[in-house]
Amino acid sequence: MDRRKFFKNGSLFTIGAVMMNPLEGSANVLDLEEVNKNKKAKNIILLVSDGMSTGTLNMADLFLSRKNGIGSNWLQLYKDNKVSRALMDTASASSIVTDSSAASSSWGGGFRVNNGVLNVSPTGEPHLPIWQKFKKGGKMAGCVTTVPITHATPAGFCVNSKSRNAQEDIAQQYLDLGFDIMMGGGANYFSPELRKDKKDMYAAFKAKGYQVVKTKSEMESASNSESVLGVFSDDGLPYYVDRNSDENLKKTIPSLAQMTQKAIDRMKNHKNGFVLQVESGKVDWAAHANDIAGLIHDQIEFDEAVKAAIDFAEKDKETLVIITTDHGNANPGIIYGKYANDNFDSIQKYTQTNEWILNQIKHDSTVSQVKEIIEKANGHSVADQEAKTVLGYYDGLHKEDGLYNYKKLPYRAFAEMQGKINSVGWISMDHSADYVELAMFGPGSELLKPFVKNTDLHYLMLQAAEVENKF
Amino acid sequence: MDRRKFFKNGSLFTIGAVMMNPLEGSANVLDLEEVNKNKKAKNIILLVSDGMSTGTLNMADLFLSRKNGIGSNWLQLYKDNKVSRALMDTASASSIVTDSSAASSSWGGGFRVNNGVLNVSPTGEPHLPIWQKFKKGGKMAGCVTTVPITHATPAGFCVNSKSRNAQEDIAQQYLDLGFDIMMGGGANYFSPELRKDKKDMYAAFKAKGYQVVKTKSEMESASNSESVLGVFSDDGLPYYVDRNSDENLKKTIPSLAQMTQKAIDRMKNHKNGFVLQVESGKVDWAAHANDIAGLIHDQIEFDEAVKAAIDFAEKDKETLVIITTDHGNANPGIIYGKYANDNFDSIQKYTQTNEWILNQIKHDSTVSQVKEIIEKANGHSVADQEAKTVLGYYDGLHKEDGLYNYKKLPYRAFAEMQGKINSVGWISMDHSADYVELAMFGPGSELLKPFVKNTDLHYLMLQAAEVENKF
Repeated sequence: MDRRKFFKNGSLFTIGAVMMNPLEGSANVLDLEEVNKNKKAKNIILLVSDGMSTGTLNMADLFLSRKNGIGSNWLQLYKDNKVSRALMDTASASSIVTDSSAASSSWGGGFRVNNGVLNVSPTGEPHLPIWQKFKKGGKMAGCVTTVPITHATPAGFCVNSKSRNAQEDIAQQYLDLGFDIMMGGGANYFSPELRKDKKDMYAAFKAKGYQVVKTKSEMESASNSESVLGVFSDDGLPYYVDRNSDENLKKTIPSLAQMTQKAIDRMKNHKNGFVLQVESGKVDWAAHANDIAGLIHDQIEFDEAVKAAIDFAEKDKETLVIITTDHGNANPGIIYGKYANDNFDSIQKYTQTNEWILNQIKHDSTVSQVKEIIEKANGHSVADQEAKTVLGYYDGLHKEDGLYNYKKLPYRAFAEMQGKINSVGWISMDHSADYVELAMFGPGSELLKPFVKNTDLHYLMLQAAEVENKF
Repeated sequence: MDRRKFFKNGSLFTIGAVMMNPLEGSANVLDLEEVNKNKKAKNIILLVSDGMSTGTLNMADLFLSRKNGIGSNWLQLYKDNKVSRALMDTASASSIVTDSSAASSSWGGGFRVNNGVLNVSPTGEPHLPIWQKFKKGGKMAGCVTTVPITHATPAGFCVNSKSRNAQEDIAQQYLDLGFDIMMGGGANYFSPELRKDKKDMYAAFKAKGYQVVKTKSEMESASNSESVLGVFSDDGLPYYVDRNSDENLKKTIPSLAQMTQKAIDRMKNHKNGFVLQVESGKVDWAAHANDIAGLIHDQIEFDEAVKAAIDFAEKDKETLVIITTDHGNANPGIIYGKYANDNFDSIQKYTQTNEWILNQIKHDSTVSQVKEIIEKANGHSVADQEAKTVLGYYDGLHKEDGLYNYKKLPYRAFAEMQGKINSVGWISMDHSADYVELAMFGPGSELLKPFVKNTDLHYLMLQAAEVENKF
């Protein structure tokens, strides 16, 4: 089959990939079309570090290389010249600054929708989500994430919903649609004790033949011949650095790389191939909280999942791996100054997130208790005045708002104080409009142009896998 | 000549560009080596938007596309699939966050040096600057910029100096070295009235056969057969948006694109080719001042210079064009919110920079005068309280510091107030460690790997032009 003629709507990808005459002025074109010619992507693994600004990618790479002498797996792919890359415009139908549901819908449905919506157009038309298209095309499909599996980013590949907040309904849709492996947090939307409608979704999934797993060991021992629902916490999973500082959490909750490996193992022998979304959802939550240890370590956890996907794809040779983010968030960066190196390196001593610290502090904590908590978690001494300032936010009068800040803790004030010691700054506690990094490895990567709209990715995935968009 | 064997030190560029067997797992490589094979870069134009964070590139593109329906020339090259791209690590010898002199020295000398230094190693060894290498190799060489021509970024390609601040000495070195066209601001370092040593550098340049031009029309009428020194202001040129709002400035001061075109015209007929650095230096200064109109419009001025360079290179077919920045600065971005689109679009009404506004306000200005100044410059009404807040910084007691903030004006306070109306945020008023965008067009661009260190660029330029590094 001639892939250049395969899609009537695919012209935006093919023009740029045609080899041009070097004498005609447009001398510099990618050769990936030539290299991967006639190879189709039997499998697709899309990895999304949610809300990852350029500085997040950069700081995780610098953190790793300064700590271990070797940087991130993501950027190692660049150093080894193994990927094609693009900048991606992430806007939604309603805003130049997208939310995660509109962002995932742009990839998942192929159309921009309003912020807050999953694959429903501004005029109410539904768009068939891409994991459903691939299921209809004969492939297995799944999602793994560190936030509730019913959250915006996995949901945008799987379902239609006028509101991303309808997570109980989204869990029901997953059941009805029969995806092959779905794992992450979100017992709030599956457990009869926690759901508002008291329905036992676990029982419903089991009745449909699913293995339901709630711990790392249950996940590991689940058969790869049957579908899997994995729910490892009520809401999002604890941050990676907090999990790694707690033997019990480390033992019971799988890492994103372990979930990724399990999902690959579950689906890799399917004769028509598989599609898998891997989301590091709490990179976004950490940016919303200006929580540097949360941000860097969850980005590192994501990077380990990148390695799991690439290791499989390098052996498999029929897998397209897509590595990206859905939008920037808070544009963090290391700020110039005489002590920037030492200050940034001080983050290596952080053993807990700011979330953990701020939850340890209570309204009746003493100044010395507050100092002890911060010193234990951040590895440096704290002045009485700083501890008093933090404690001042626990008087019931001075409360911060913010997405995911359910307990109204002083994330911003704490990050500002911390920034003087670690040299990291943030523009806000919310998403940004920055164009974002996108990389592809394997068959289909030759279709990528250096600048794309988020919606282009929908059609590229279908084209790479030669699944006709006829549904 | 076999370019793959040309440089003993060139192996870092050639390994990745070799065509790999698609069946061996590393299927995705650039074909630019094939396309540009055996073509050498007779000319090199390196364009640097100084201190350009990802968000700056993105906001200028969004600003243009929302205003005119078409985005930036820089990103149009990506949409047309005409360039190779990399992420670049910008660190210096002394810090993960570079200054502009160490950054330019990394490209200019091929080695990382300490912040503040021009092509002198931490142990005092000089590194021969690349424009001198190309001069020795028989090419013409020049620089144009919107800041003093003796400033760090042009100086890093031309001279050695233990301090970037030795700008009078740098002007003297330019004279001794005999570059073919040097234009920008900086009369402070050329004029006998302004130099500390009272030396008349204009007379000295003329005595050496230079045409000295001080206005746009003088520049335009200068012969292309003789060397040119152009100095159009005492320090940096006024910001582009302020120039465009002032008929006199618009008439007397050339744009960066016009300077670029003049430099090309001066050198393009030289039989051995030429090298040209084009710097938009005040993108950096605007970021240091969190001055959004300065930032976006100077980035647009830079983008017009990109077009001038590419237009020439597309016809010439022997010119390597490099487009990049030396480091991030302030990581600005558009922040999520219900009115993000309208807020960002309000910047289209700005006719002056914050620098202009804050210089108009005097300690004895009235509240209604302050309101009038801001309303005129930003196109929206201002509350009395906001005007009072700004005026409060003119009482002689509340002063802001900051690089390039010679008059201690309240840039930060004003940008914070403005940010509520235009949705733009900043992490700081200084450089960041972010990895940065780098694009190449034309012969030699096939040598670029997807991730490079700033120093790699030095050797790539020599290799692309087949100028042996033997000096």
